[in-house]
Amino acid sequence: MSYSIIGTGGIGGYFGGCLARAGKEVHFLLHKDYNFVREHGLQVNSCRGDFHLDGVNAYDNSADMPASDVVIVALKSINNPLLKDLLPPLLKPDTLVLLIENGIGVEAQVQAMFPQALLAAGLAFICTAKTGPGVIHHQDLGKLTIAPYTPGAEQRTAEVIRDFTEAGVKAVTAEYLEARWKKQVWNMPFNGMTVALNTSTDALMANPSTAALIRAQMLEVIAAARALGVKNIDENFADLMLEMTAGMKPYAPSMKLDHDFGRPMEIGAIYTEALRQAREAGCPMPRLEMLEAQLRFIEGR
Amino acid sequence: MSYSIIGTGGIGGYFGGCLARAGKEVHFLLHKDYNFVREHGLQVNSCRGDFHLDGVNAYDNSADMPASDVVIVALKSINNPLLKDLLPPLLKPDTLVLLIENGIGVEAQVQAMFPQALLAAGLAFICTAKTGPGVIHHQDLGKLTIAPYTPGAEQRTAEVIRDFTEAGVKAVTAEYLEARWKKQVWNMPFNGMTVALNTSTDALMANPSTAALIRAQMLEVIAAARALGVKNIDENFADLMLEMTAGMKPYAPSMKLDHDFGRPMEIGAIYTEALRQAREAGCPMPRLEMLEAQLRFIEGR
Repeated sequence: MSYSIIGTGGIGGYFGGCLARAGKEVHFLLHKDYNFVREHGLQVNSCRGDFHLDGVNAYDNSADMPASDVVIVALKSINNPLLKDLLPPLLKPDTLVLLIENGIGVEAQVQAMFPQALLAAGLAFICTAKTGPGVIHHQDLGKLTIAPYTPGAEQRTAEVIRDFTEAGVKAVTAEYLEARWKKQVWNMPFNGMTVALNTSTDALMANPSTAALIRAQMLEVIAAARALGVKNIDENFADLMLEMTAGMKPYAPSMKLDHDFGRPMEIGAIYTEALRQAREAGCPMPRLEMLEAQLRFIEGR
Repeated sequence: MSYSIIGTGGIGGYFGGCLARAGKEVHFLLHKDYNFVREHGLQVNSCRGDFHLDGVNAYDNSADMPASDVVIVALKSINNPLLKDLLPPLLKPDTLVLLIENGIGVEAQVQAMFPQALLAAGLAFICTAKTGPGVIHHQDLGKLTIAPYTPGAEQRTAEVIRDFTEAGVKAVTAEYLEARWKKQVWNMPFNGMTVALNTSTDALMANPSTAALIRAQMLEVIAAARALGVKNIDENFADLMLEMTAGMKPYAPSMKLDHDFGRPMEIGAIYTEALRQAREAGCPMPRLEMLEAQLRFIEGR
């Protein structure tokens, strides 16, 4: 199967890089780093072993790319409107579009643009970031959950999981709504709280007041997820996420990096739409509504 | 009636200064500013007209002060344990101790130290701060609510209100619990939020997200107050406080100043005890619990 990567940052560069290293056909769409990667290749500095890719299939325009069996979209959700132009050249009738993005509602948004496309959600439990032109730093973890969204996407999803497994990535499948909301259990507390308090995950875990607050926020997400029909989730999942975080190296989530580097934050996908759905389901999340308001204030400053 | 002021800062200096200007006998306990005020007097720069007091009755030790009819305690609540030594020389059997402090539970704390003392709560709706040695800056507002706490404190409270009125201060009485919790409706949102977001009241009011959040936090306090038995309070009081704040000049509440100048914040009196009582009454305040956790994190940094 052939792959195209839209958005060669921490996520797209790492997962695409793993597939390419394993000999899969991978085409990378780049923007600022196009010339550098075309000339010097892609460097992945990973806690599981560094590797370098030469002769990368690099593009600065999706119109020049071949249609692929799988398109991995690893943009900031805020840039999804760009897909209207970026995606069409890459689509075959049975292409799977895998959205490895944060937040709630991103598949619905893209499906509305491309009603015929087969979509799947990708949930990356990984600490990774682009740290320089063509340089990806993979700091910790690395599991990828892939959940079919469009009816009929199941078989292609299974094939993608097989490819990732061959490429050394721990990839599993899951039910769509469950997968998206489980990711939110980590994303909603930690992304915003590291921005609001200008800190990193380890400091939030080390202070008993914020550690208890993070847990309370996680329980708000879990209650909302259950109200929205996610069955396989309960309080234990909060403790699992807290244990995982306690075992992680100090980490600045993507929203913290976005804020620090003056990029827009993904408040809409990570907070606004999730909060709206929770309210509509009769299960509002007051602490996370407060966090959203603080982020909107910080964004407007 | 004779007055002693314990804590000659923004509050004690302003209200004590108004009484002295009106010819009342007022004794001021000072700490760092003692020598300066003894020599140069007290300067009050007020939006209602500046004034200067010469020949101030200044002391650096309460043991040197005469027993008074009224003792105004205008310390940070965090320093109340000092009252064990500061108060006894000032007390006559019928002395009224007026605690113009922030928070919930301060009268109970002081009454436990002095079971025989007549206590009243003072709630100052005023923007005032000490801006230099012996210099008080009165920026805005100025109403003082005095609520008898100890049974039997009613008559002396009425006399104090008469004196303040003669001194040009708008002073009124109110029921104790109602008065304390109405002050909390403003204090709990604005003190912590200006610290958490490093901002001032006007910026929080100007952003629609934080303006809505502040209102939601006010409604949490109002619901808790009602659960604790305060009858004369409802949603309208939140709107009244928001209107008042919208009409104020940009203001940094006392907790913001404390934080900016590296002094301890009054988290215990303004948050912890109020949150505990609200939980006990079956009416927790999730947004304000979150704010307390953020403040504890900031305090620990």
